[in-house]
Amino acid sequence: MASQVIREWVGFQQFPSATQSKLIELIRKLKQESVSTLTILVMGKGGVGKSSTVNSILGERAVAVSAFQSETPRPVMVSRSWAEFTLNIIDTPGLVEGGYVNDQALDLIKRFLLNKTIDVLLYVDRLDTYRVDNLDRQIVKAITDSFGKEIWHRGLVVLTHAQVSPPDGLSYDEFTSRRSEVLSKIVRLGARIRKQEVKASSVPIVCVENSGRCNKNEVDEKILPNGTAWIPNLLQTITEVVVSESKGILVDQKLIEGPNPNNKGKLLIPLIAAFQYFFVVKRIQKWIKNDIARESRPSWA
Amino acid sequence: MASQVIREWVGFQQFPSATQSKLIELIRKLKQESVSTLTILVMGKGGVGKSSTVNSILGERAVAVSAFQSETPRPVMVSRSWAEFTLNIIDTPGLVEGGYVNDQALDLIKRFLLNKTIDVLLYVDRLDTYRVDNLDRQIVKAITDSFGKEIWHRGLVVLTHAQVSPPDGLSYDEFTSRRSEVLSKIVRLGARIRKQEVKASSVPIVCVENSGRCNKNEVDEKILPNGTAWIPNLLQTITEVVVSESKGILVDQKLIEGPNPNNKGKLLIPLIAAFQYFFVVKRIQKWIKNDIARESRPSWA
Repeated sequence: MASQVIREWVGFQQFPSATQSKLIELIRKLKQESVSTLTILVMGKGGVGKSSTVNSILGERAVAVSAFQSETPRPVMVSRSWAEFTLNIIDTPGLVEGGYVNDQALDLIKRFLLNKTIDVLLYVDRLDTYRVDNLDRQIVKAITDSFGKEIWHRGLVVLTHAQVSPPDGLSYDEFTSRRSEVLSKIVRLGARIRKQEVKASSVPIVCVENSGRCNKNEVDEKILPNGTAWIPNLLQTITEVVVSESKGILVDQKLIEGPNPNNKGKLLIPLIAAFQYFFVVKRIQKWIKNDIARESRPSWA
Repeated sequence: MASQVIREWVGFQQFPSATQSKLIELIRKLKQESVSTLTILVMGKGGVGKSSTVNSILGERAVAVSAFQSETPRPVMVSRSWAEFTLNIIDTPGLVEGGYVNDQALDLIKRFLLNKTIDVLLYVDRLDTYRVDNLDRQIVKAITDSFGKEIWHRGLVVLTHAQVSPPDGLSYDEFTSRRSEVLSKIVRLGARIRKQEVKASSVPIVCVENSGRCNKNEVDEKILPNGTAWIPNLLQTITEVVVSESKGILVDQKLIEGPNPNNKGKLLIPLIAAFQYFFVVKRIQKWIKNDIARESRPSWA
């Protein structure tokens, strides 16, 4: 591993120069805080645009993107270095299969991450999906159960397909803010963030548009319908999360193995056994004893 | 019910005149086949655009549309009459909740439909969703179990959000045909249509774009990116399905109450009991008999 050569971040030079200067500024800020390696974990349902987002951040087609079915094995980590700064991005399989949270995929992700530190979690969903349901909450809960509640201090909600025409009668800003509210609530509930913590722990929401048809501003940066150059905006929000007071999440053996819901009750087993011995077995023994004493002489004798 | 006054189809006059003349032609065709009432059932997951499609077909805001959560009770039937022709459209609640097929919703729909005849089923999903999974198949299966396989002879797959920018590297036609293929397969599997039946039973797929931002042609008709005026196209496909050889589905008490999957195996119970008696009980009795015969005198005697 030590001898692994990390490829140069060639995609960096592909960004418009306006984006490049903003990114240089952000990397400077990170280095000031002694952050020279940034590991970003990308998770979410299948088909929401995880891989496209990975490619957009890197500025190159680093991971295969398939609209219809994901054909490339995941998780996969792509590492790029630029000016003594290393960017690792981990693309993962979709977290839902057949209407259920795919625990197998989550397990695979956890094992893949062993001994890595997650600096940032990007939880990806589509901006242009209109409904959320209990399954969305279950996905957030499954992530929380796997990596601990703290991961959401390092979390961002990334909404793809942001160049959307909102449904009739809603402006773009109304639509994005309502969709953001709904998703904030899902994350709050799934991550069990209490009401009094909301202010301190609110998870930032960032919109992105990975399509090649994304509109651009006069300096060739991809922009959202509200004019935001979204790649620098995304990386700025990531930087803000990283330089905040929270800590990255080290995925060690302990985190991988527990607290597993299946093991949760194991401590109670000796207690239950003792209870059974004293209150059930003992009592039955006493009954039998009394019974034998009473029946010492058979009634027909 | 007989005294119920059906409102006039005022939306009809709101259509561009090019659309109106095509619809008049279709209604004439239906009347030729003695169809003077058309009942369309609209089903699908939540948030895919069922209610918007209902409104588009009627040419008026007949049912409330809410992007984020459905607030109006469903099912609801809207009836409109025009030139001694009656159009009934039934809008329904979303068929998925929390990653499961919402059996309660399906039950509600079935009871709502009692004594009605479904002439056409519109199974609605989004064109711009990229993945299907086992849940989609389960939805089709649940519809099949509820209304019988025959409903798919009267079925259309309606794909909303058709004014989509396809993912990078795919043309609009490639994208729609691949998404159509995927959905055809889901319907085929969920409806248990056998390979040899495919040709006869293939369910037509129609794209629609309900947004007010839908592009229009020179005669003011809403068109898809490939130029198709989609409202007449949808109604033409509906007409073709209705004048085909298949029959509408009468939802009677028998259909509502069964064949329930829970009852499916009941006929087998006496068979299994008989099998157990002759092959299991009899054999054991024989063993015991032999055993008694051999051990007629105890070995310690």
